[in-house]
Formats: sequence, C-alpha cells, structure tokens
Amino acid sequence: MLYEFESPLMPRPAYSAEENTTIREDFLDGAIKLFRQVGAEELSLRRLAKHLDISHTKLYRYFGSKEELLIAIRQKILEELQVEMYAQDPTDASATARLRAASYAFCKFAVSNEKEYFFLFSDEIENTRNSKAYLKQRQALFNFIVEIAKQAQVKGQTDLDGRTLANLAWATMHGLFLLHFRGQFVEGRSFEDLFESAMSLLFGPAKDEACGSSGSR
Amino acid sequence: MLYEFESPLMPRPAYSAEENTTIREDFLDGAIKLFRQVGAEELSLRRLAKHLDISHTKLYRYFGSKEELLIAIRQKILEELQVEMYAQDPTDASATARLRAASYAFCKFAVSNEKEYFFLFSDEIENTRNSKAYLKQRQALFNFIVEIAKQAQVKGQTDLDGRTLANLAWATMHGLFLLHFRGQFVEGRSFEDLFESAMSLLFGPAKDEACGSSGSR
Repeated sequence: MLYEFESPLMPRPAYSAEENTTIREDFLDGAIKLFRQVGAEELSLRRLAKHLDISHTKLYRYFGSKEELLIAIRQKILEELQVEMYAQDPTDASATARLRAASYAFCKFAVSNEKEYFFLFSDEIENTRNSKAYLKQRQALFNFIVEIAKQAQVKGQTDLDGRTLANLAWATMHGLFLLHFRGQFVEGRSFEDLFESAMSLLFGPAKDEACGSSGSR
Repeated sequence: MLYEFESPLMPRPAYSAEENTTIREDFLDGAIKLFRQVGAEELSLRRLAKHLDISHTKLYRYFGSKEELLIAIRQKILEELQVEMYAQDPTDASATARLRAASYAFCKFAVSNEKEYFFLFSDEIENTRNSKAYLKQRQALFNFIVEIAKQAQVKGQTDLDGRTLANLAWATMHGLFLLHFRGQFVEGRSFEDLFESAMSLLFGPAKDEACGSSGSR
C-alpha cells in the first residue's frame, strides 16, 4: 500500500495526473475484489478504506461517494465483458456465427459471474449524471451487437430487423440466466439445452459450442 | 373484524374446520393487501396482526411463521394468474393461438402486478417442506402450457418439442419483463414491439392483441 503522509499539520503529497490515475485504478481493483466478497449493498467507502488499509480521507479524494464508486465498478466489470466479447468475435465468420459467439461469451460471463451479472443487468440503474459514461459504454457494446445483427438481416439470415433481434437475444438470454440462477426452472430441460435451443430459435441451427453452467472464462 | 374473546382467563372459542378455513382466507386477503403495500421483506406476523386489528396470538394459530404466510400469499397470487390464464384460453383455437393467448394473459398480469411478479418469479424459491404445495401448483400451470405446446409440435406449428418451447417462451417473456421493469432496455424499440416480435419468433406470425405496459386486467 501507499505510504500515508496525512496529518492535519502536514501538507498532503502532490501526485501527477498520471499517478492519480494509477492510484485510482489500484483502489478500484481492490474495490472490485471487496465487491465480489460482500456485494454492492455492504460495500461502503469506510469499509473499502479499511480493506485497502488507507485513510477514509485519502480514498474520498478518488471516489466522492459510494454511488461514484459503484458506477466505477460497473464500468470496470462491463469493460471486462466487452474485452471478452471482442476477443471471442470471429470477425471473418458469418453474421449469425458472430452473434452466436457473442452470445456464448455473454453466457460464459454470466454463469461464472453471477453476482456481477445481477449488479450490471438486474439491479436498477441509478439516474445520475455520473452514470452517463457507463450508459454510453453499455450502449456501445449493445451497438456492436446491433451492427452484426443488421448484417444478418441484410444477408437474409433473419426476418427480424437488427435492433429487434439484438434486443430479443438479450431478453431471452437474460430470462434464461435469471430463471437458472434463481432455481426457477421447472424440471425437464437443462439450462444448457435451453440455451442451445434459444440460439437456434434466434440465429438459426448450428452447434459447435456450449455454455455449461460450470463454464470457466 | 372478528370479535376477540381472548384473555388469559377465558378459554379461546372453538371454531369448526369450515369456520377456521374462512377465517384463514380472510386473514390471507388482508395479508395480500398489506403485501401489496409494503412488500415481502417488511411484512411480519406482528405487522399483519396490527393491520388486521387482531392479536398476534390469534394470527399465529393460522400462520405458524412468516415463511408459511409468504408461501400462502404466493399460492394465492399464483391462483389469480392461473384463473386469468384459464379464462383467456380460446380452447377451440389453434395451439399457437392458445399459446399466444396464454402469453398475453401472463404479460398483462406481469405489467399490472410488478411487485407480485417479482415475488413469484424473481425471488429465490424457499426450499421448505411447506412450499411443496406451491411448487406443485406452479408445475400444474406450467404443464398446462406444455400440453398446448406439444399440440403445436404435433401439428407442425413449431420445430421445438413442447417442453422446450414452453420453457423458452417463459424465459423470453421473463427477460422482457425484467429488463422493462428495471429500465434496462437500450433505446430504439418499445417493450410492446419487442413483446410482439417475441411472440412471432416463438409461435409464428399473427397480430390481433397487444400487451401494453399500461394494460389492465
């Protein structure tokens, strides 16, 4: 951890903008670890300061409120999902193969990060100025899918317009994940089978991958 | 309200089994009203007794614990949904028309009873002996849909087997409702349009009804 100069009698050390960014990133990494342990509700600036072994005052300089911290965590987790989806994108494949690949990446993220998934997509989104950057980032990821879905429509691989197909794929997967997480499915079909059927319904038949509930990233 | 004989010195009045059932039903109606006001978390036997203007001891004779009360509320709400779905069933129509009608009834229930919907299908289901009756009731309603979906399969109206189609329809609607309730949809398509597209994807084209977000039952 960083050395603490703080005392009412001593001036606080001046960091360069770059140093401040690095420090904030370090604190945010710690915050995400703590979030994964205790969840959003239990996470407070005070608790995080203790977890990082720094003064509350120092932490406060980087995150002005719990809300600001939570939005930063959301952004960071969304970024991880984004990186994963881009990394799994078979850019030279057909539009529907790309939509499937993106869906599998989304599914693998969801089943291996249940707490994070709820935090990103099931909790209410705060209506604050600070979350605009987050909403923009989320929109960008969604638009990436919409663009591929539009290509699928142009190539006649789907009857739905791109934006509708992207939204329906999202809603279908969201419903599957949540019913799965909550143990709400009525016996008879496994999550994996249902996910595969959903893929075929949305993007047409093909089977070369699977999203197991024990899937690792 | 019922007259209270209770005092440590007086024996409590004996009710017939039939009377006890009626009293329990009355208390349950009050419990559902209170649940609609305050939600499951805030609902306690003590608070309900106060709401019903009866003694905690008396209420306790009909509901042994908060959990038992919550399961009774779940059963009662599920029953309302069930009655609605059966009432809307066009028994002489095609299987896919019946599936659509059941879906619209489900959607109307969901959008006009957001709190109840979360309570039934989004919260974790307790793993208790007492909830077996509830799970059985839920299974019966689901099987009603599976049976119609099987007919759709037999008639060649869907490529999916009945149970898979029923599960996918459920998951798709569940995802649509929750994203809608949480304000999670990215702009571009309304809930109503997405719901209609989902219906067409699941059950084939047709448009004669709609599930508006302001729909009443």
